[in-house]
Amino acid sequence: MAKKNTTKPIILITNDDDITSPGIRSLVEAVKDLGKVVVVAPDKPQSGMGHAITIGSPLRMNRMHLFGEIEAWQTSGTPVDCVKLAVDKILHRKPDICLSGINHGANHSINVIYSGTMSAAMEASIEGIPSIGFSLLDYRYDADFEPSKKIVHQVVSSILQQKKLDKHLLLNVNIPAVPYKEIKGIKICKQAYAKYEEEFDERLDPQGKKYFWLTGEFKNFDKAKDSDVWALQRNYVSVVPVQFDLTNYILKKQLEKSKLFR
Amino acid sequence: MAKKNTTKPIILITNDDDITSPGIRSLVEAVKDLGKVVVVAPDKPQSGMGHAITIGSPLRMNRMHLFGEIEAWQTSGTPVDCVKLAVDKILHRKPDICLSGINHGANHSINVIYSGTMSAAMEASIEGIPSIGFSLLDYRYDADFEPSKKIVHQVVSSILQQKKLDKHLLLNVNIPAVPYKEIKGIKICKQAYAKYEEEFDERLDPQGKKYFWLTGEFKNFDKAKDSDVWALQRNYVSVVPVQFDLTNYILKKQLEKSKLFR
Repeated sequence: MAKKNTTKPIILITNDDDITSPGIRSLVEAVKDLGKVVVVAPDKPQSGMGHAITIGSPLRMNRMHLFGEIEAWQTSGTPVDCVKLAVDKILHRKPDICLSGINHGANHSINVIYSGTMSAAMEASIEGIPSIGFSLLDYRYDADFEPSKKIVHQVVSSILQQKKLDKHLLLNVNIPAVPYKEIKGIKICKQAYAKYEEEFDERLDPQGKKYFWLTGEFKNFDKAKDSDVWALQRNYVSVVPVQFDLTNYILKKQLEKSKLFR
Repeated sequence: MAKKNTTKPIILITNDDDITSPGIRSLVEAVKDLGKVVVVAPDKPQSGMGHAITIGSPLRMNRMHLFGEIEAWQTSGTPVDCVKLAVDKILHRKPDICLSGINHGANHSINVIYSGTMSAAMEASIEGIPSIGFSLLDYRYDADFEPSKKIVHQVVSSILQQKKLDKHLLLNVNIPAVPYKEIKGIKICKQAYAKYEEEFDERLDPQGKKYFWLTGEFKNFDKAKDSDVWALQRNYVSVVPVQFDLTNYILKKQLEKSKLFR
């Protein structure tokens, strides 16, 4: 029987861009020497799906042969559904770590909340699976993922080398879109208060009826020098530790004192 | 010119169950004397949509006459889209407060993350609009919302009476499904670590192919006496102050000390 410390960790990989995207292929390539990789990812783009789950309709899964010897499944669900299906129906156990991405496009600042990539990672964390989401600041299909692959390998191997891993560990890693030698290092950051200022693009269909496209301009309202946006603007990789307890404990104390509702 | 303090506040109302649900009607009835109400809500059920936004397809909105004199619009989008559309295309300004619900079913503990109701409220909070989500612990269409209406009125009028409202104020209010006289009071709580243990119900379609329904059993892992689940089990209304900064500051400090990625 193999000793525990020589057993390969099981690495679950998912994303939100879909199972055929170059980003997830790069993630698989970056970590396949670090454990036994299993891929469970959506069969269509799921960007901006946030923490959506599929309640009103059933889910499908199909085995895919996209990554050589590596076991891979596509599902009809959201990124969060993929994590749930992987644990309950494919692995029949919790993987040792869950990796999500590499996303085509930034998931820093407030984007963590809208991101299917990060929601999949958060779902794993809720389930007690250490988890990391990776995003490259280049939304293009043919973005250059080579520098990202080196960063991913460095981050994941550092984490896997920890003796005792926090089972709820959840990291949001964003990588600047520059050549590897221009990356200045890895910075532990907080989530910036930076967001899109929305405007809807209003158009008329051929029947003369209005329809609206969501669009917007990204604005950083955060002056802190430890925010992810700050770090990325200076060509650092940003690592934001994330939590799923959304309680605002400061406001909780204030409200308890205020006796507002008594 | 009317004095500022005599001007009626603009109250934006949305939900995730859809604009025709008894829950949103009850919310409108509960607060219509407290301000100028405008309803912008989805045209179909959007439960479990989390913080999803519509990126790949355009949105529609239609004026509805469902609430007498009150201006109401249904949209083809998610609850989060509804808030964005309301601000940019209907109100052309930020409302003074955003209310979401009353949800048919609980949104305590981890449900805050999956909930369309709470994601709409969070979207408003991100935009700097004080916001409250309301949920009744009864998922049935014909649930009794009368006790909830009294609670909603009490909570919203208390909040509106504050001299200075935190623009990012975000409350997750859950109401036990009991007669009004059995409600013990309102408790300020933290989000419980309580969640669904998922299992997928596996079935075969008429062509003999597998499909899966998400299902699960709710389990509370949290022993704290200030959690929302604890309060609700004892017939208190739970009020959890919520934040959208997901940074885990404790882990951030630990990682900074560890020099893990250097």
